[in-house]
Amino acid sequence: MSRVYNFSAGPAVLPEEVLKEVADEMMDYNGTGMSVMEMSHRSAAFQEIIDTAEKDLRELMNIPDNYKVLFLQGGASQQFAMIPMNLMKNKVADYIVTGQWAKKAYQEAQKYGKANKIASSEDKTFSYIPDCSDLPISPDADYVYICENNTIYGTKFKELPNTKGKTLVADVSSCFLSEPVDVSKYGIIYGGVQKNIGPAGMVIVIIREDLITEDVLPGTPTMLTYKTHADAGSLYNTPNAYCIYVCGKVFKWLKKMGGLEEMKRRNEEKAKILYDFLDSSKLFHGTVVPKDRSLMNVPFVTGDKEMDAKFVAEAAKAGLVNLKGHRTVGGMRASIYNAMPKEGVEALVAFMKKFEEENA
Amino acid sequence: MSRVYNFSAGPAVLPEEVLKEVADEMMDYNGTGMSVMEMSHRSAAFQEIIDTAEKDLRELMNIPDNYKVLFLQGGASQQFAMIPMNLMKNKVADYIVTGQWAKKAYQEAQKYGKANKIASSEDKTFSYIPDCSDLPISPDADYVYICENNTIYGTKFKELPNTKGKTLVADVSSCFLSEPVDVSKYGIIYGGVQKNIGPAGMVIVIIREDLITEDVLPGTPTMLTYKTHADAGSLYNTPNAYCIYVCGKVFKWLKKMGGLEEMKRRNEEKAKILYDFLDSSKLFHGTVVPKDRSLMNVPFVTGDKEMDAKFVAEAAKAGLVNLKGHRTVGGMRASIYNAMPKEGVEALVAFMKKFEEENA
Ligand SMILES: Cc1ncc(COP(=O)(O)O)c(C=O)c1O
Ligand SMILES: Cc1ncc(COP(=O)(O)O)c(C=O)c1O
Ligand SMILES: [Mg+2]
Ligand SMILES: [Mg+2]
Ligand SMILES: [Mg+2]
Ligand SMILES: [Mg+2]
Repeated sequence: MSRVYNFSAGPAVLPEEVLKEVADEMMDYNGTGMSVMEMSHRSAAFQEIIDTAEKDLRELMNIPDNYKVLFLQGGASQQFAMIPMNLMKNKVADYIVTGQWAKKAYQEAQKYGKANKIASSEDKTFSYIPDCSDLPISPDADYVYICENNTIYGTKFKELPNTKGKTLVADVSSCFLSEPVDVSKYGIIYGGVQKNIGPAGMVIVIIREDLITEDVLPGTPTMLTYKTHADAGSLYNTPNAYCIYVCGKVFKWLKKMGGLEEMKRRNEEKAKILYDFLDSSKLFHGTVVPKDRSLMNVPFVTGDKEMDAKFVAEAAKAGLVNLKGHRTVGGMRASIYNAMPKEGVEALVAFMKKFEEENA
Repeated sequence: MSRVYNFSAGPAVLPEEVLKEVADEMMDYNGTGMSVMEMSHRSAAFQEIIDTAEKDLRELMNIPDNYKVLFLQGGASQQFAMIPMNLMKNKVADYIVTGQWAKKAYQEAQKYGKANKIASSEDKTFSYIPDCSDLPISPDADYVYICENNTIYGTKFKELPNTKGKTLVADVSSCFLSEPVDVSKYGIIYGGVQKNIGPAGMVIVIIREDLITEDVLPGTPTMLTYKTHADAGSLYNTPNAYCIYVCGKVFKWLKKMGGLEEMKRRNEEKAKILYDFLDSSKLFHGTVVPKDRSLMNVPFVTGDKEMDAKFVAEAAKAGLVNLKGHRTVGGMRASIYNAMPKEGVEALVAFMKKFEEENA
């Protein structure tokens, strides 16, 4: 089979030219006579790979000097514990629950202190972002937590919550590098790389230096202490070295494409094609309040389960794969991350039009 | 440059034919139209990859049915905390300290209960394995911990300690799949895959089912609870999917080579070539007591730091790379894992002979 258009929510499509490069370098990376998979993480060649990756990421996101960039294992899910273990000095944190991932983070934090659910959109299957302009932020909250883009439900915070001066912690797994961000507004920005950046098995944590302390909760494992990794430049133990290498290539690709301003323009253009069609279609409609729609994850339904299933099956045959929605929403979801070309979205919409005609 | 002989202690050399296969499949895995890097971990194609990897590993190691195989993130270092958090029901464990990795595990366990150092070889720079036939095992020990092959110091337990009925936990990072083992003698066998199996970013934990419980220490993160991963077939969250895929290919390669009996024969043959030369050489000598020598990691020295440095530099020029020893031992270390061909060891010994003649 030739390459498909892969609408998976993650792990997800990667830039074809990055895949070609890593395949080309598999037997011999840059004259070292070995694959990056075989390379000591203490070697000069690997140090250059990780340093360049960090430098390019800093440039892309315009990360201020008082933030550390950490390349860690364990996935975003491990951060659900690592964040409270490191940040809950007062044992109080406020969570805004806008989907399953925010809810899991909220539940995990309850192990470590008082986690308050200060807002939620669960009443309407997480199909919107609550008004966060004047929430009852706890006076002693160590941080306020959000999941900025809700992968399953297809919502996105278009404006950050008013944290009333408290540290903002954001899971950006599914919108990482999709548009420019002002890093200085956050205490921690983190995300699994397996959606918008690289292969699974790594989380990137961008953390303000004053939040990196030895004063963590008792029983916090060495490996779950930010300071361990910050002090060692993410090389306290063996990192997911190959993933760092592939992500580094994606950072180069993003720079070549024009950086995050340009990615934003492209992502808006792609999303508009799909949302405009959903709004005009009689058969298909989006499930999210328009003002809160994600540029990355687009859930939609026909309202008829059998029709949904038929659509997903026929689309797959046409080379448009992984369109099945999450079981908690049903229907379909098209994830259209940075590496999904405009042609992929156009092909999807053309297929939806044809399907609608055939099934009118 | 053509391929070098890479004596790195880890990440380390991988079988060339495995690297070729993964390069070939980079743009389109098995007709799916995508790379394994892009594949949803919830897809049928990936489920088959992980199921096949587990099945082949079970076959290779002859793993009994009452053991689970877990593919986890965080490296071996994270297990240093995960083991006591899950197993220390009585808050007591006995550690045999035969090197830096056992020592780190021992130190981490002290966070969670009473960790007893019941034997150590630190008095002689960890150059031997202590007699473990009649140690003062604690009557209420939840487990006895060893590092079975000591990567840095080049020692190996040729016989397992007498645990007097207590559960044995073993870090086998640097001897994983190097020879047959009797899994039923252990409660947990675990190791990072980046030495003898695949790329960095994953640890394999083989754990007896009765050790997998909900009764973990308070504050144990969901992600550090074995039951979380055992119940979900290692798919509780997104795993290091690409690493599982590459390791699966290495398992196939090992089966094709003849399995672990044959690997043991090959490893003994390779190690003998190097040890015999060290024993006959006037310039070079091994640092380990002969009876405790590892088949995988072979440290050696000339006794002269400048000569050592000269050797390492000239060897690298000859395509024999990563021979520098760990800073705590000095000198040289040749790691000769499964994927190091006999020709690599022969080339090393030939070079050592020539170097000895030139520097007599
Ligand atoms: C927004 C968000 N957060 C967290 C996660 C969990 O990530 P991981 O599987 O890396 O633990 C996901 C995975 O889909 C996600 O979409
Ligand atoms: C025997 C042993 N245990 C543990 C480790 C640590 O592994 P990781 O870097 O995956 O945490 C190593 C790494 O060299 C090792 O050799
Ligand atoms: Mg969500
Ligand atoms: Mg509509
Ligand atoms: Mg050691
Ligand atoms: Mg000698």
